[in-house]
Amino acid sequence: MLRTRFCELLGIEHPIVSAPMGGTANGELAAAVSEAGGLGMIGGTSPGGPEWLRAQIRVARERTTRPFGVGFITSFPDTGELVRVALEERVTVVAHSFADAAPYVGASHEAGARVVVQVQTVEQAVRAVRAGADAVVAQGSEAGGHTGYAGTLSLLAAVLDAVAGTPVLAAGGIADGRGLAAVLVLGADGAWMGTRFVASREWAGGNWAKQRLVEAGTDDTVQTHAYDQTMESPFPAGIGDRVLRNDFTAAWDGRDDEIVRRRGELQAQVLAAVKAGDPRVAPVRAGAAVGLIRAVEPAGDVVRRVVAEAEQVLRARPSQVLR
Amino acid sequence: MLRTRFCELLGIEHPIVSAPMGGTANGELAAAVSEAGGLGMIGGTSPGGPEWLRAQIRVARERTTRPFGVGFITSFPDTGELVRVALEERVTVVAHSFADAAPYVGASHEAGARVVVQVQTVEQAVRAVRAGADAVVAQGSEAGGHTGYAGTLSLLAAVLDAVAGTPVLAAGGIADGRGLAAVLVLGADGAWMGTRFVASREWAGGNWAKQRLVEAGTDDTVQTHAYDQTMESPFPAGIGDRVLRNDFTAAWDGRDDEIVRRRGELQAQVLAAVKAGDPRVAPVRAGAAVGLIRAVEPAGDVVRRVVAEAEQVLRARPSQVLR
Repeated sequence: MLRTRFCELLGIEHPIVSAPMGGTANGELAAAVSEAGGLGMIGGTSPGGPEWLRAQIRVARERTTRPFGVGFITSFPDTGELVRVALEERVTVVAHSFADAAPYVGASHEAGARVVVQVQTVEQAVRAVRAGADAVVAQGSEAGGHTGYAGTLSLLAAVLDAVAGTPVLAAGGIADGRGLAAVLVLGADGAWMGTRFVASREWAGGNWAKQRLVEAGTDDTVQTHAYDQTMESPFPAGIGDRVLRNDFTAAWDGRDDEIVRRRGELQAQVLAAVKAGDPRVAPVRAGAAVGLIRAVEPAGDVVRRVVAEAEQVLRARPSQVLR
Repeated sequence: MLRTRFCELLGIEHPIVSAPMGGTANGELAAAVSEAGGLGMIGGTSPGGPEWLRAQIRVARERTTRPFGVGFITSFPDTGELVRVALEERVTVVAHSFADAAPYVGASHEAGARVVVQVQTVEQAVRAVRAGADAVVAQGSEAGGHTGYAGTLSLLAAVLDAVAGTPVLAAGGIADGRGLAAVLVLGADGAWMGTRFVASREWAGGNWAKQRLVEAGTDDTVQTHAYDQTMESPFPAGIGDRVLRNDFTAAWDGRDDEIVRRRGELQAQVLAAVKAGDPRVAPVRAGAAVGLIRAVEPAGDVVRRVVAEAEQVLRARPSQVLR
């Protein structure tokens, strides 16, 4: 068994968290991950708003008695209202990313929830811990969807040094047991994985997107602002969006000014492609670890296999290289 | 002691390589790294051309009887001539990066040299091994100076899968024993470190640049084309340049078209700043692991400490997380 400070903090079995992907990390996915011994997270920032979130928390609660959580894109304007729903529903963990979490920490602690803050810089990690975060996620640029520009390996090491004493999870570039073992050896208290759980039976997005993930390799992702500019998504400066390369990114990556001028037309194109399930134009958010994913599987199987692989690597590999 | 396939291949003690930073990784640095048991590399692509390279190889040979090598920016036009010098001087390893190494593999093998190819994508790794590379370096976007856009963690795992059987080193984001231990656990055969050896007594660049490295943190680097556009450096598409943020990157990053229009003036500014040792305008190339570097030290001490730390981590950490 793997045990870290993060496991102790939350009373979970395995140091694996499914990332709270907005609107697609639903209650079913979170429950499957938690039932398997990890920490499942619902993506609380979604077009469905507070009603969707409340419904998903209730779905998860029906399916598991184990701890699970809700995560937010804190830069979005409805965060306050959504956090209130999560706290009313008494989730175990509330997670924040992409904006200062400080305004939300006190109420979460009062409601008995643990606060996890995902960061993309060392400075943000220090601020999060000062604000009372119980754990920090160092999210590297390898991550799928929205993330910063610092690679996981060096960001993780620097964050561990900067917030010594606070559990730190690694996010970005991890999709198997080797990756989990590597970040644990570096000092992390667990792995926060998104893309690996997109390619799960429970993930609530389109099957066409899951299929593209299975086909894609590590060379096939790009960090772009093309979709955020098109859809006017309120992410802060310093945050890009890692997606699979497609016709849309080939045409529009790096042409932000022109996107602004043709926004109406491009928004219509993207929305139509999402509706039609057309990955040539619709965004398929994927981390650079996408090349390590070979099948869509039940999320619980993913948790169990990644943990078993990591244990095996941690038992076998040191003696292969130490003489 | 740490032993990997890369150590066996070259008859070296420690799985640590100092990166062949063009013109500044000189014979003294390479010899110090090799004498400490690693593999020292001379940066063969430099303004000094073949004469400088030959002189540096001879300096290294005077200082060590152990294996060392020379690495090239293979996209630069003088590569053929420089490789001939390295082979005439009978170096142990010839390394290539940023262009197809295939044209150089045969002659190097005939001269008894091993060929190491640094890659920034999985496809390049597969091509390098097909062309006869003896080892591959998976260089992630965390690396200092010129590198690609894939993070080390996921690139390394995907390259290991793609070229199973060939030793793979990890580059980018590694500056201490934790990082070396982590990539070894992931499956790497060693670490290729640049920035950590820039902050060495032997590195031949300016002390002002070393000092900036010691001061800088992990949040302080940026991947840019501003200097390459200004200096008309022949790096291929898909390769950026990681430097410390400064006044020049603040003014010019992302404004490539305008740089082209004002190139004469900007070149003069940059050259003057390099001459004056002014890091506000001159490039200070640094990887994202810069935040882990706290002092300028003898390169041999760096090798010995990183290895000792990695051994300690590999002995202690698995039993901390396995129950």
